[in-house]
Parts: sequence; C-alpha cells; structure tokens
Amino acid sequence: MKALGRQIVVEFYGCNQDTLNDVAAIKRSMRGAALAAGATIVQDAFHLFNPHGVSGVVVIAESHLAIHTWPEYGYAAVDLFTCGDDVSPDLAFQHLKEHLGATSFSCMEMKRGILDTPGLDELRFKPEGANALEVADAN
Amino acid sequence: MKALGRQIVVEFYGCNQDTLNDVAAIKRSMRGAALAAGATIVQDAFHLFNPHGVSGVVVIAESHLAIHTWPEYGYAAVDLFTCGDDVSPDLAFQHLKEHLGATSFSCMEMKRGILDTPGLDELRFKPEGANALEVADAN
Repeated sequence: MKALGRQIVVEFYGCNQDTLNDVAAIKRSMRGAALAAGATIVQDAFHLFNPHGVSGVVVIAESHLAIHTWPEYGYAAVDLFTCGDDVSPDLAFQHLKEHLGATSFSCMEMKRGILDTPGLDELRFKPEGANALEVADAN
Repeated sequence: MKALGRQIVVEFYGCNQDTLNDVAAIKRSMRGAALAAGATIVQDAFHLFNPHGVSGVVVIAESHLAIHTWPEYGYAAVDLFTCGDDVSPDLAFQHLKEHLGATSFSCMEMKRGILDTPGLDELRFKPEGANALEVADAN
C-alpha cells in the first residue's frame, strides 16, 4: 500500500502547562520538530489565545505540522503530516514529546492518499520537480 | 465521551486538476469552508509548489483547516479540525467537496482530547474567555 503521505496524530498529556501557554516556546518547539524531521520549513503561523492556549502550524515542503494546546488540561493535540521518504515524522514526535514535557501520550498513524498509480513507487518527495512521473521518466 | 476537538480527515478523489493547482482558488475555497463552518479566521498560509501542488492552512479560532493537493492525481488530503459546538466541520466539508469538484471521497472523524475532567460538559469553545473552568464557575 503505497501512499502519498503519512500522518501521525498525537495526543500529548501531562505536558508542562507554562510551556503550553508560551507561544514563543511552542513555535520554537514546532519549528525544531520540523528540522529534526529533516523537513524544509516554508511558512508558519502561531497564535496565542485569550485567556490561554496556543494554535500553530508549520507548513513544510513535505506537508505540515500542527498543534493546539489546552494549558489548563496539560493537553496538546498534534498532527505531523509528511510526504516522501526523506523526512521522519517520528523524529518530530520525539522532539515535541521532550520539549512539551509530556508524561503520557497516544499516537496513531494514517496513510494518506493511497493510490493505485503506476510509477508511484518512485515517488521520493513532492515538491522541487521530483514528482512521481518525472522520476519515473528519468529512470 | 466528551472531547475538546473534532477532526474530520478527508480524502478527495477525482477533483478538478486545474483547481488543485490554483493557489488562489484553493485559498478561496479553504477560507470559504472556514466561514461556511461558522469559524473565525485568524491567519492563513498557502503555498504553490514547483512543479505543482498546493499546501495550505487556515488557522481558525476553533483550531485549523489544512489541505495538500496533488493535481497530477486529482487528489487532495484535507483535515478539518474544530473545537466547540458553535462550528460545523460538516459544512466546511460540503463547501470543499463542491469547490474542488471531487467525484469521490473517503471520510473519517476523530475525537481529539478526550478528557475525564469535571466541568468539561460546559465547554462551548476555547478562546475568548469561555474556557471550561470559567464557564463552570459562572454556573
């Protein structure tokens, strides 16, 4: 089952509540997670809510990482969506787990875009001219 | 099972390929989907990849909507993450399905942040001072 993308859905519990309400710390952790995964950061958007809680997304060349925090519950909802075999969402997960100080978590992985398409085995990553068809042509 | 958030994970197939590669159209559709859901748009980030494909996120006060398109396969991966009972991700889904011209799709809904927390029944939405504890106090 070859898929275009992988998405790791994480529930982080027992996180450091101060960290979860610190938009600069969350942004740093999320950008650090993207880099730890080997991803290329394209853009980000982070927002601190009133009275508390942070939402943020890092758009990467290989898809996106998203987080929503509820400091009052020590809880953060995280999505790590990547495509291609050149990035490791597992490393992003480890980075975030450590930086949020999560004491427990649950995790689920989904394949996104399961296609029965000739040449898809050759897909390395989506952007920068290396789409499946071109790689297939080059071989 | 009371949860902080709902996430609808959608695979759209057979979409209009021109639309999937039109960053302005995708941005318009995604922002329209947020408004259709009754959400409050906080920020967005959209990017057109070379040679093709669009990634984009709309951060809403009630969480986020994300899309990644593969025009070459007529495929789009969509996540509609909302919190609170004041928004309807189902309406966002319908809006996108129509605007992307999807001929088929698959859909999955997850509950995010299932907590066994007193007062959580009172949660209406997260931002703007109406968090669970304050609402519980007010009653």
